[in-house]
Amino acid sequence: ITSVKAADRKSIPSENLLVITAATRETDGFKRFMRTARQFNYTVKVLGLGEDWKGGDVARTVGGGQKVRWLKEEMEQHAERDELVVMFVDSYDVIFASSPRELLLKFQRFNHRVVFSAEGFCWPDQKLASKYPPVYNGKRYLNSGGFIGYATDLSRLVQSWSFRDDDDDQLFYTNIYLDKVQREKYNMTLDHKSKIFQNLNGAVEEVVLKFEKGRVRARNVAYDTLPVVIHGNGPTKLQLNYLGNYVPSAWTHEGGCEICNDDLLDLTQLQVCVCVCVWISGIDRKQPTPFFPEFLERLVTMDYPSDKISLFIHNNEVYHEKHIQAFWEKHKDKFHKTKLIGPEENLKHGKARNMGMDSCRQDPQCDYYLSIDADVALINPESLKILIEENKSVIAPMMSRSGKLWSNFWGALSPEGYYSRSEDYIDVVQGKRVGVWNVPYITQVYLVKGRTLRRELAQRDMFTQEGMDPDMVFCRNVREQGVFMFLTNRDEFGRLVSTANYNTSRLHSDMWQIFENPLDWKEKYIHENYSKIFEEDGTVDQPCPDVYWFPAFSDRMCDELVEEMENFGQWSGGKHTGRRFRGGYENVPTVDIHMNQISFEKEWLKFLKDYIVPVTEKLYPGYYPKAQAVMNFVVRYRPNEQPSLRPHHDSSTFTINVALNSKGQDYQGGGCRFLRYNCSVEAPRKGWSFMHPGRLTHYHEGLPTTQGTRYIMVSFVDP
Amino acid sequence: ITSVKAADRKSIPSENLLVITAATRETDGFKRFMRTARQFNYTVKVLGLGEDWKGGDVARTVGGGQKVRWLKEEMEQHAERDELVVMFVDSYDVIFASSPRELLLKFQRFNHRVVFSAEGFCWPDQKLASKYPPVYNGKRYLNSGGFIGYATDLSRLVQSWSFRDDDDDQLFYTNIYLDKVQREKYNMTLDHKSKIFQNLNGAVEEVVLKFEKGRVRARNVAYDTLPVVIHGNGPTKLQLNYLGNYVPSAWTHEGGCEICNDDLLDLTQLQVCVCVCVWISGIDRKQPTPFFPEFLERLVTMDYPSDKISLFIHNNEVYHEKHIQAFWEKHKDKFHKTKLIGPEENLKHGKARNMGMDSCRQDPQCDYYLSIDADVALINPESLKILIEENKSVIAPMMSRSGKLWSNFWGALSPEGYYSRSEDYIDVVQGKRVGVWNVPYITQVYLVKGRTLRRELAQRDMFTQEGMDPDMVFCRNVREQGVFMFLTNRDEFGRLVSTANYNTSRLHSDMWQIFENPLDWKEKYIHENYSKIFEEDGTVDQPCPDVYWFPAFSDRMCDELVEEMENFGQWSGGKHTGRRFRGGYENVPTVDIHMNQISFEKEWLKFLKDYIVPVTEKLYPGYYPKAQAVMNFVVRYRPNEQPSLRPHHDSSTFTINVALNSKGQDYQGGGCRFLRYNCSVEAPRKGWSFMHPGRLTHYHEGLPTTQGTRYIMVSFVDP
Ligand SMILES: O=C(O)CCC(=O)C(=O)O
Ligand SMILES: O=C(O)CCC(=O)C(=O)O
Ligand SMILES: [Fe+2]
Ligand SMILES: [Fe+2]
Ligand SMILES: [Mn+2]
Ligand SMILES: [Mn+2]
Ligand SMILES: [Mn+2]
Ligand SMILES: [Mn+2]
Repeated sequence: ITSVKAADRKSIPSENLLVITAATRETDGFKRFMRTARQFNYTVKVLGLGEDWKGGDVARTVGGGQKVRWLKEEMEQHAERDELVVMFVDSYDVIFASSPRELLLKFQRFNHRVVFSAEGFCWPDQKLASKYPPVYNGKRYLNSGGFIGYATDLSRLVQSWSFRDDDDDQLFYTNIYLDKVQREKYNMTLDHKSKIFQNLNGAVEEVVLKFEKGRVRARNVAYDTLPVVIHGNGPTKLQLNYLGNYVPSAWTHEGGCEICNDDLLDLTQLQVCVCVCVWISGIDRKQPTPFFPEFLERLVTMDYPSDKISLFIHNNEVYHEKHIQAFWEKHKDKFHKTKLIGPEENLKHGKARNMGMDSCRQDPQCDYYLSIDADVALINPESLKILIEENKSVIAPMMSRSGKLWSNFWGALSPEGYYSRSEDYIDVVQGKRVGVWNVPYITQVYLVKGRTLRRELAQRDMFTQEGMDPDMVFCRNVREQGVFMFLTNRDEFGRLVSTANYNTSRLHSDMWQIFENPLDWKEKYIHENYSKIFEEDGTVDQPCPDVYWFPAFSDRMCDELVEEMENFGQWSGGKHTGRRFRGGYENVPTVDIHMNQISFEKEWLKFLKDYIVPVTEKLYPGYYPKAQAVMNFVVRYRPNEQPSLRPHHDSSTFTINVALNSKGQDYQGGGCRFLRYNCSVEAPRKGWSFMHPGRLTHYHEGLPTTQGTRYIMVSFVDP
Repeated sequence: ITSVKAADRKSIPSENLLVITAATRETDGFKRFMRTARQFNYTVKVLGLGEDWKGGDVARTVGGGQKVRWLKEEMEQHAERDELVVMFVDSYDVIFASSPRELLLKFQRFNHRVVFSAEGFCWPDQKLASKYPPVYNGKRYLNSGGFIGYATDLSRLVQSWSFRDDDDDQLFYTNIYLDKVQREKYNMTLDHKSKIFQNLNGAVEEVVLKFEKGRVRARNVAYDTLPVVIHGNGPTKLQLNYLGNYVPSAWTHEGGCEICNDDLLDLTQLQVCVCVCVWISGIDRKQPTPFFPEFLERLVTMDYPSDKISLFIHNNEVYHEKHIQAFWEKHKDKFHKTKLIGPEENLKHGKARNMGMDSCRQDPQCDYYLSIDADVALINPESLKILIEENKSVIAPMMSRSGKLWSNFWGALSPEGYYSRSEDYIDVVQGKRVGVWNVPYITQVYLVKGRTLRRELAQRDMFTQEGMDPDMVFCRNVREQGVFMFLTNRDEFGRLVSTANYNTSRLHSDMWQIFENPLDWKEKYIHENYSKIFEEDGTVDQPCPDVYWFPAFSDRMCDELVEEMENFGQWSGGKHTGRRFRGGYENVPTVDIHMNQISFEKEWLKFLKDYIVPVTEKLYPGYYPKAQAVMNFVVRYRPNEQPSLRPHHDSSTFTINVALNSKGQDYQGGGCRFLRYNCSVEAPRKGWSFMHPGRLTHYHEGLPTTQGTRYIMVSFVDP
């Protein structure tokens, strides 16, 4: 056999390449393989589809002989085709990174008739290691997950297969290669430096993503090669999943996610039934959840017909029973079916989840199963529809604690199976890379197809294992079934509510959550029109000179604040010092309760900083409040108690004065008059705040409340 | 002789009373006596007028016999008039306190034919004391300054006079009284308890003013009597003067001064010449005087023709030579005559005053002599005319340090001849009793008639006596000549300038006088229209919202402040911290000099308190400034130095900003813009101040000065 210089030969046309693979089922991995093949226009022949697998449990032990048998049969028809090049590869754990043209050029440069992929482990028979020819730089041992050769040679090579379906394929090819006579006969070599084949096992550290223009390669940094076929052999499936999120062009810097719209479901002609399972209280301990009434409310306000939803609620938290009770009374009848398991049944989490999931699995009508924990705020009412549309077996909407890196997925697993940060984790959480991501772990909220539950995930216990978190058990089970778990951050879905530091001893405990859950706090307690203050053409009312009037508190905030104060009850009796001065000396006190008396001072200052400072800076340009305030209090005016407040100055650079109830409805009279301008705000609107200079120019008085009770919240800012 | 009960008798009609007195000259005391006599309609026969006095120096030794001789002669014609009652009294030192009717009733109640006044001293022969009948309660010894009796008895009594004119009258009457036979023959007694006659000598403490409705009595508190004739015998002339300021109705609570308009001169037909003598530097040491240029200026601005004035200036103070020089150059030619004695002549005060006074005395044309010290601010330009109109031999306008009890007169003398506080001193100084007051001591400014100088005060040395203050010497001499010194507080004349704490080391030292001489400071340094701010219908300019603009400094203040700063010269170079902030953080400094750098901080704060606080309180009602201010400075803007100030907030509740020079004249451009209102004050007026809120609402900038130099004074009030 003459060895001919590559440069002297004509290059092999791509049509002369046939890719052969073996797969009994169209798993998620198979679909991914085929997508990458299609992308480069590979001609792929799939052997064994629909047949039973008899090749053994290859994930755990030896086997795979069935694949050789199928190949031997297939090669018979190609035995005489001199021009044909055949490449055999696995498909469940393989992706293409480049084109047939590049593949064939590289193959030609090998100057051999047959090239097998190589790896660093000698498997399945470690004793054979010493028989391998020595290799000074490169992987030494044969791997049979990928090889390429001329059809004439390969057909002869597999002709010698005469073993059982569950005998080991790799051992078969290894023995041929290690027999020097045969090796030379077939002119065989190994791809020691991953020029064509990258086996990831033992080489995970060597392979990195290489972002090129409009495409992504996997680059072997050990040998400076750009392999064409990437094989997640052995325990490197998750690493392949990670690479597969990019390679060859699933996500690029230029085009973003290029495959996201490939398999979308058309929702217009679809009316599917969903089993929504709600889990209340932390995974392994009792933990009340802030903003829980709002969570429940979203179940009915989401954009999905309630009568298509079966609602299963597992509540382990006594604190929330009253909320569920209220919700149940109002909304129970709207759902297709409902089931509530309360704390009294003392049902463990894993078991409850098995029960909930099985209720969908057993119901042929159940198209989707949505699992959601109480700390998940699915603010986007389209969330369910979007997840269904994504058309994945298992998919989770990306959620994080607002502004934090804490999320509902892991981008990688540690060797022990716990959280490990993938290189792209931060970009995905922060939305700098947008797409649908194949990840090893999702939690708190996910959607599973009913069909998947009834097929791949048919085992009834998906969640329990002694000492393990149910979601971790679940994800491991899913992974083991070769089902991909996707995470989408293509839309904004909402956020995770923090359950840390939730003190439920208050009447309205959520009011104190401004630090821990600022967005939920804002949605609940800030006036819906607050943000209009900052709109382009949004001019703020100025009822008197330099006095501004704008929406601040939601009705909810007004009511809860008044209720907290009345609940506390120790009104000052108009006696103690208020740093409010008349004529420069005499103190002008109100009947009031100060924020520090209900331990709300830190929270109030945070409110000032987050919501009042921006208004101040907009309305008094150039002034940057320090947002210091010692005097923050709710005032109560009543005709027979303290009906009015005589003219005075406040101890403030500016004062905010928020109406906590409604004139005409809750009281008559009231208002605030600025004497120097002879100008009054007579009809304060509930939840609206004034902002006015405290001294010098704005001598002011509280006008008499003639009926009912008037409440205002007053804060002297920057004393 | 039968003693008859008073009640049984008919009362003696007033026509039956004849008052006889002796006086060679119509002294001030005589005129006073006659005025009180006229007031009660006494019939008075004056013996000796125009004749030479041969009765001896009665003020110092025995004598007065001439009076008895005249009386003896006079009584011859009344010897047979049974119905006639005769009262003999002195006149220079006597006043009437009540009517003939009361006098006669009291006389009748004595049930004697002859009643002599009594006193506590036995004079002129102390050895006779034991011969007096004992008296258990009352004065024991005879005084011949006043007695009353039936004409028949009295004429017989004086018939026995056969002594010399300079023998003692009192000894003569005493001997008759002590001779029991004669005493009974004439049916004589003494007025032991001052029922009719009050001799003040030895009884000053017993006699007090008793204000009745529309009249004033002298009341003897030792005997609870209301004497009719008050006699300032011996050394009690000043006490009589004091009583005479009230008794019988010279000044009453109801009518005020009832005699003030009696002797006024009609100035319309008069053109009198005045010698004005100016004395510079303190009585006994060199002492510069603040506001001296203003003092000089008033000599020409007073409402009196300068060409009727001879000006004599004695200046012992080198510091003031430049002021006189400037004045001389401008005004010297306007006066009738001028004479200047400077410090180089080293002339003593008393001698200089003698010289000045004599220059009037020797000039028959000199109608009036006005003496004035440099610390006398005769603000009222009518002062000279008013004093002339008062038509007194010697008169001083009442002047005091503004708001203080320190004045230019004494209401009483101590036994040693120094200041002693009269009962009415405070009321006179404070203008609670208004009138023309006979006082023992005047100083600093007084007017003397030329005629008086040439007659009663003809002695050339009126001022010098070793170790004595010239004004004290002068007053003693005047008193000794029986000339009354009057003090008028009927008009506002001005005030005394305080020379204490006058530090002349500054360029414009008067600027520092705001504490010591607040009114002079105000007149010099405060804008003439400042007080209009407070007028009923005076609205203050408001060029931008809540920005006020009002006259504050006089041109003088502006110029002197700038000159002080330029003289100091250490401009900051726009570098050091100014407590002026942009964007809340960045400091915005100016090229400036701070008030504390020229040690003007205390004075500036006083200015704020006295002149800015009232404006603030008017314009921002209800706000009472603390008037604290750490940042007070003059800013200099120049095109090539620092032309403008970028937008910022001040560290103040409000800021005042005074223009120190004139746009168009001293610079072009400049001004202050309030960004939030898009409103500028483009053409600041010299001496006018802005007042604007410092923070929040009034973000502002200094507009570029394009030519020349712009100076402003800025103060951040109530930081
Ligand atoms: O009644 C009002 O709105 C005025 C309240 C007020 O000025 C204060 O509490 O300081
Ligand atoms: O130039 C002006 O009038 C403004 C000065 C000023 O704002 C300041 O000195 O703080
Ligand atoms: Fe207030
Ligand atoms: Fe400023
Ligand atoms: Mn494989
Ligand atoms: Mn209070
Ligand atoms: Mn006398
Ligand atoms: Mn400065």
